[in-house]
Amino acid sequence: MNFKMIRNIIMKLMMAEGILLILPLIVAVIYNEKEWKVFAAISAVLIIGGLLLGDRRVKGNTRIFAREGFFIVGMTWVLWSFFGCLVFYFSGVLPTLVDCFFEMVSGFTTTGASVFITVADVPKSVLFWRSFSHWVGGMGVLVFVMALIPLAKNRSMYIMGAEVPGPVAGKILPKAGATAKTLYLMYFAMTMALAAILAFGGMPIYDALCNAFGTAGTGGFAVRDGSIGSYGNPFYEIVIAIFMMLFGINFNIYYYLMNRKIKDAVKNTEMWTYFAIIASAITLITVDIIGMYTSLGHALRDAFFTVTSIISTTGFGTANYDLWPNFSKTIILLLMILGGCAGSTGGGIKIARVVIIAKAMRRELKKLVHPRLVQVIKIDGKRVDDKAISGVFVYMLFYVVIMFVSCFLVAIDGKDLMTSISAVISCLNNVGPGIGDIVGSVGNYSTLSAFSKIVLTIDMLIGRLEIFPVLLLLSPGMWRLKGADW
Amino acid sequence: MNFKMIRNIIMKLMMAEGILLILPLIVAVIYNEKEWKVFAAISAVLIIGGLLLGDRRVKGNTRIFAREGFFIVGMTWVLWSFFGCLVFYFSGVLPTLVDCFFEMVSGFTTTGASVFITVADVPKSVLFWRSFSHWVGGMGVLVFVMALIPLAKNRSMYIMGAEVPGPVAGKILPKAGATAKTLYLMYFAMTMALAAILAFGGMPIYDALCNAFGTAGTGGFAVRDGSIGSYGNPFYEIVIAIFMMLFGINFNIYYYLMNRKIKDAVKNTEMWTYFAIIASAITLITVDIIGMYTSLGHALRDAFFTVTSIISTTGFGTANYDLWPNFSKTIILLLMILGGCAGSTGGGIKIARVVIIAKAMRRELKKLVHPRLVQVIKIDGKRVDDKAISGVFVYMLFYVVIMFVSCFLVAIDGKDLMTSISAVISCLNNVGPGIGDIVGSVGNYSTLSAFSKIVLTIDMLIGRLEIFPVLLLLSPGMWRLKGADW
Repeated sequence: MNFKMIRNIIMKLMMAEGILLILPLIVAVIYNEKEWKVFAAISAVLIIGGLLLGDRRVKGNTRIFAREGFFIVGMTWVLWSFFGCLVFYFSGVLPTLVDCFFEMVSGFTTTGASVFITVADVPKSVLFWRSFSHWVGGMGVLVFVMALIPLAKNRSMYIMGAEVPGPVAGKILPKAGATAKTLYLMYFAMTMALAAILAFGGMPIYDALCNAFGTAGTGGFAVRDGSIGSYGNPFYEIVIAIFMMLFGINFNIYYYLMNRKIKDAVKNTEMWTYFAIIASAITLITVDIIGMYTSLGHALRDAFFTVTSIISTTGFGTANYDLWPNFSKTIILLLMILGGCAGSTGGGIKIARVVIIAKAMRRELKKLVHPRLVQVIKIDGKRVDDKAISGVFVYMLFYVVIMFVSCFLVAIDGKDLMTSISAVISCLNNVGPGIGDIVGSVGNYSTLSAFSKIVLTIDMLIGRLEIFPVLLLLSPGMWRLKGADW
Repeated sequence: MNFKMIRNIIMKLMMAEGILLILPLIVAVIYNEKEWKVFAAISAVLIIGGLLLGDRRVKGNTRIFAREGFFIVGMTWVLWSFFGCLVFYFSGVLPTLVDCFFEMVSGFTTTGASVFITVADVPKSVLFWRSFSHWVGGMGVLVFVMALIPLAKNRSMYIMGAEVPGPVAGKILPKAGATAKTLYLMYFAMTMALAAILAFGGMPIYDALCNAFGTAGTGGFAVRDGSIGSYGNPFYEIVIAIFMMLFGINFNIYYYLMNRKIKDAVKNTEMWTYFAIIASAITLITVDIIGMYTSLGHALRDAFFTVTSIISTTGFGTANYDLWPNFSKTIILLLMILGGCAGSTGGGIKIARVVIIAKAMRRELKKLVHPRLVQVIKIDGKRVDDKAISGVFVYMLFYVVIMFVSCFLVAIDGKDLMTSISAVISCLNNVGPGIGDIVGSVGNYSTLSAFSKIVLTIDMLIGRLEIFPVLLLLSPGMWRLKGADW
């Protein structure tokens, strides 16, 4: 691997985090909070460190490949989370470094699983940083930097391929840098639109901004105990539910719409599957819970909010779904696993993979009946080659095995089975809340053991970076590479 | 498909069931139970019906292929279960036909999940038939018939391939019929050895036979409420635990041992993996439960019995593991999924598949670090080709999807999540008991809805026949085939 090049890129990325920390610093100054010192110190360390340790120009070989892309993405996410979590550590809002790291990874990976028992006494600037991390992590911390700093074309694609969710990296423009810039512009515009609508509806601007970050990144950290439900305002709930659903769609769709390519936007199988699943889930849950409500409208609203919150893997809450019947809870658990569309900010296994799996299974069944059948799998009229299909299979295999191993490790904690299983499913799919009294929709992860928190932290990274960058970092063979191999 | 040939084979198989029913008929006569009439009637219908509907000789085309093999196996298991369950129906021990069919499928598939609330008042001949179904189903109802009736070589291999568990059909002798005969002889000898040891230790001969059937088929139906624990005899428990473990091993191993091919027997990766998993599980569980026991010996014995009972997918019980800590319960849930070795009577996904998956995953990880790596996967020194590996991937994919869909369908019942999830895992892997108060180690499936019972019945068949024969039967395309296609 090209170590010089890697160090150079990572150092640029650390400086970028230093610059981003100026935003919560400003918030601290506005609200006259003493935490401005914490932000200033970490920001200074990152910017100065980046300047000192990064070569301004790399001479000679500047090529990087898929493996380097995975390595850079994995390392950057770990380092960003480490330096970012120092905010929690030095402002003294969380007791241990493990807790701080958990919370920060949960932020960047847009999981939204929290170890805060209450956020009522946490400084506003710290909560702003926590919500803002969702926004940066949602579209990708590297994609963000690539939108600002131009890199050579092939390099950027490998990095985007490693960070943008889904079986196929979204490449809507010929140049990766331009794609990244366009993506972030649309992302920024939609986030600001949401914040404006919420503020227009009466939400304080600070809350509107933070909740918009949490929605856009499909993260789910709230700035009030009791999440979105605590405002008691149906308007907020409906607006946020609609936007959670929108942020779970592939951003290419918005690009097509922006360029009036209505046909391309409309013939998207993944999007329609996503809508069909949402509609079915809302219907089934509403029928299941209607007896607990006095009006159909309220039941429908709670079902709509919960379904969009879970399938987009945001994790905001209005109703305590742990009180719902078991059938609804099962649907919620399945939605957690499905997740959003490829190329969105949502987590989960992505609807695109579900569609490919469903088509591949259908082909296998047809082959059972007609053994000599040769059939090409097509999505949106385009052929999906066998390599892509077997890539999805390998991905799913790792996914399921990691899920089982994590469940086993978290079970050592001794919590009930539904708590450990749902905690793993929720973190691995970057949702946030699990099921049950402990980690459920009104609970938090504070009472888990440090070991469980570390396992779940790794799961969150594995889920957000789609397994392989994290496995590469955890692979002993990686750290034995030397000389020419690097 | 060659329909004439298929009908002919299925009719022969139905006659075979008629002949097998003479055994419980004899038991009924010995114990002077009026149920002898039920056995006699069903037996007569099967034998006479088989004679009338089956052509003695098929002229012309006698070839059958994989698809026909799947179809024959799937149809036969459904028909055997249907006619076999009439024993329960006409002897009036179970209220509905759905219950009867569930219990019979649970018997033949060696699951051992029961809808009987108590077996204390069930006639001995009926319980004998119930336990005997484990024995026949364990090695395969078609393999059993093939051991008796000679068929042409290629035909038999397709049928054995569809019925013998594991990723590769065990072919230890050049002729399938001879293999079937050898397998059944060893199976018979081991079963009788177990029954003899139990009887020698003081167990009534009737109980010894029935429990031996339940152990050999890795089924788990007991003839007493409270399963093996009700005898309160550590000798029985240890003997049965050892035999449960032995019946979870590939029968080829015994064939090698019998022919003094010690080397071939010893270099079996799957077997050593199986033993390693058992040893680790016993150790972890013993450490976890030791606080609940007064002596290490007792804790170790209960752990040994439970682990071998679950991993071999037998489901016999001595201790109520629902009272154990959650970590132990998680291990039990994972063991259910793993199951026994390929070519054994055990269920689950089979250790052979686990080994292949582990090696394939390791190769993918190595490829991450060394992208140009080309590596062949070997098991026991033999190369596993990519087709076999992708076959395992496809299998696992169907397995996981079927598991999720079943969980969703059983959840409609409204039982708690752990009940519905563990019921599906237990039935799909042919274990028997689930986890929790309802379907747990001291519970039964009687309180589930008829719909859930039907879903779980299909799951048991899917698990025992390894998915595809059942999917072929459920595939609408299959029933639209006409004329030349048949």
